[in-house]
Amino acid sequence: MLDFNFVNPTQILFGKGKIAEIAEKIPAGSRVLITYGGGSAKKNGTLDEVLAALGDTTVFEFGGIEPNPTYETLMKAVEMVHTNSIDFLLAVGGGSVIDGTKFIAAAVLFEGDPWDILVQHGAGVKKALPFGSVLTLPATGSEMNCGSVVTRKSLQAKLAFLSPFVFPRFSVLDPEKTYTLPLRQISNGVVDAYVHVVEQYLTYPVNGKVQDRFAEGLLLTLIEEGPKALENPEDYEVRSNLMWVATLALNGLIGAGVPQDWATHMIGHELTAVHGLDHAQTLAVILPNLLTVCKKNKREKLLQYAERVWGIKEGDSDQRIDAAIEQTRNFFEQMQVKTRLSDYGIGKDSIPHLLAQLQAHGMNSLGEQNDITPELSKRILEQSL
Amino acid sequence: MLDFNFVNPTQILFGKGKIAEIAEKIPAGSRVLITYGGGSAKKNGTLDEVLAALGDTTVFEFGGIEPNPTYETLMKAVEMVHTNSIDFLLAVGGGSVIDGTKFIAAAVLFEGDPWDILVQHGAGVKKALPFGSVLTLPATGSEMNCGSVVTRKSLQAKLAFLSPFVFPRFSVLDPEKTYTLPLRQISNGVVDAYVHVVEQYLTYPVNGKVQDRFAEGLLLTLIEEGPKALENPEDYEVRSNLMWVATLALNGLIGAGVPQDWATHMIGHELTAVHGLDHAQTLAVILPNLLTVCKKNKREKLLQYAERVWGIKEGDSDQRIDAAIEQTRNFFEQMQVKTRLSDYGIGKDSIPHLLAQLQAHGMNSLGEQNDITPELSKRILEQSL
Repeated sequence: MLDFNFVNPTQILFGKGKIAEIAEKIPAGSRVLITYGGGSAKKNGTLDEVLAALGDTTVFEFGGIEPNPTYETLMKAVEMVHTNSIDFLLAVGGGSVIDGTKFIAAAVLFEGDPWDILVQHGAGVKKALPFGSVLTLPATGSEMNCGSVVTRKSLQAKLAFLSPFVFPRFSVLDPEKTYTLPLRQISNGVVDAYVHVVEQYLTYPVNGKVQDRFAEGLLLTLIEEGPKALENPEDYEVRSNLMWVATLALNGLIGAGVPQDWATHMIGHELTAVHGLDHAQTLAVILPNLLTVCKKNKREKLLQYAERVWGIKEGDSDQRIDAAIEQTRNFFEQMQVKTRLSDYGIGKDSIPHLLAQLQAHGMNSLGEQNDITPELSKRILEQSL
Repeated sequence: MLDFNFVNPTQILFGKGKIAEIAEKIPAGSRVLITYGGGSAKKNGTLDEVLAALGDTTVFEFGGIEPNPTYETLMKAVEMVHTNSIDFLLAVGGGSVIDGTKFIAAAVLFEGDPWDILVQHGAGVKKALPFGSVLTLPATGSEMNCGSVVTRKSLQAKLAFLSPFVFPRFSVLDPEKTYTLPLRQISNGVVDAYVHVVEQYLTYPVNGKVQDRFAEGLLLTLIEEGPKALENPEDYEVRSNLMWVATLALNGLIGAGVPQDWATHMIGHELTAVHGLDHAQTLAVILPNLLTVCKKNKREKLLQYAERVWGIKEGDSDQRIDAAIEQTRNFFEQMQVKTRLSDYGIGKDSIPHLLAQLQAHGMNSLGEQNDITPELSKRILEQSL
């Protein structure tokens, strides 16, 4: 096992009606800015439930945070915070709203150009406004971690930052709040969580036995529950399990003490920034091909994955690895997320620009061994056509 | 899945040489009281390493905290804290030292009779001194939870308290610091962690899929690594895995959203208080018999345990359950912890007093369904002879 430091101070309030507990988690007398997305939280009543729970707290609202939240939009919220002397943020939404709120929280107190928060990947963040979240879309894990991804439209750049100052103080996970999600978002969420686990699991062995067992447990649960969520959108138990899995997939625990990959995410970010694909779509396209291209380096863990997650015991090593990769792709397709660039109308002619963007963002040595060069990224993209 | 609130703010510093990082985790200018046990931390150099890491911090020392720490001893430390205006505690040791330090931290700032902290199981604790820990004995999980068990010798009482104010601020987990442990403590630690997991897992099903998978992952790792630790006491990888498993076994995560039992612990505490058995010895004696006596209520989870943890697929349901309980007992014996009261010279004549002590401590309806009556506790004890 590798050395690690691990801490995660976010409090999780899990279950039906837990929104009612938020007022006691916010300091008395706070001036709260509620941040949300395209309006579904308003339409489906979640926002009203939040307002009711906050009682006579002074509340402001900032809606319109996009999927893949943009720097341009978030900076308007930063201005609103300053103008109204806001001292607590409350994100109501999915990963994009929470990621965006983390950026707002950090940018409000950042000295210098806020874009540097992303360019420096969070290194310069020394403080942030406190905030909580009410999660409506299980997928990214942002509700219980200190990472955030923001897109700057004008630069076609999608960059991530990490800072211990942007852990949510609390996050409400009420599975019923996910009932009204479009199936596409359920599908995307399952794929997103799955790939989060894989990025921390399918690397090289360091004898992190618990981390491996936990990762496998999360993957097995996604495989069992994901398809059920599409069939029975209002099955509370299914939604509960998916919600808790998605949070645990990226709260730092399974990645503590083991190598991490994240190349699929980095290549995927460029696909979203350039072609507008959903985040999960990019992961479903890239992961199977990345595993194929990198299977030599990932050999031992791929064999473990084949056996423990997919129950594959027949055939020689290469056959078992190929079968596991194929099962992975099939699972994404079963979740109704397409796994080829051509499915999204993207052809070979797009690859040079995607590679140029990767290089422009410093992504020249990706993966757990920093050995995914631009040449390998090219092979992965070509294989993804 | 059941509703739950979960938070765990303890920072883990895991790996070789991590003691060097403690100074930056303690507020500058603190007056620190280092608490430790029987002197092994002093003999094996861990205490010196801690002192070196603290540099010119003002440090006091309080040694002599016993296994099953006593109220009588801990109250002397409370006095020392007051006398010397201590404002930060640093526990160097195993679960007993950390549990004891939690009690000191709470008692120092408690208004009223400190024994009430335990009588009220922590409900009255409103604040506590901050503290950290350097773990030398993986077993109890105390390094990353907010629970503590304290014995009052004069009353033959061993009581637990829980309070969110007594999470350690940080805990150092350096597997090398466990090399010098006597094998008996390694054995005890593995059994202790195993039973912690079982108390949160072998109850009744609530469809907590991740919690189940995580619990099974911890049990499988203990079964794989425990015996190796006895064979190769200085295998870093084995020690690393056991250390991390023991912490995760009782940091609140696998118990969030599922029923919990704890009857084995409650009955075991009386055995320690009256007969002085090691904590893990009491668990190894009680658990297999409790599972047998309660197998009707635990039927579904016992079948899952048999299959997923022990790979038992042959035989009818009762045979599979009995085989899983037998495997559990065999594992404890393999870890060199005896599983019968008679192994410790305790006979039938002790049972009435043990039952009277259980009743005196309010333990009349134990277990996840509160249905372990004194009559059932009697059957469990009789079966354990």
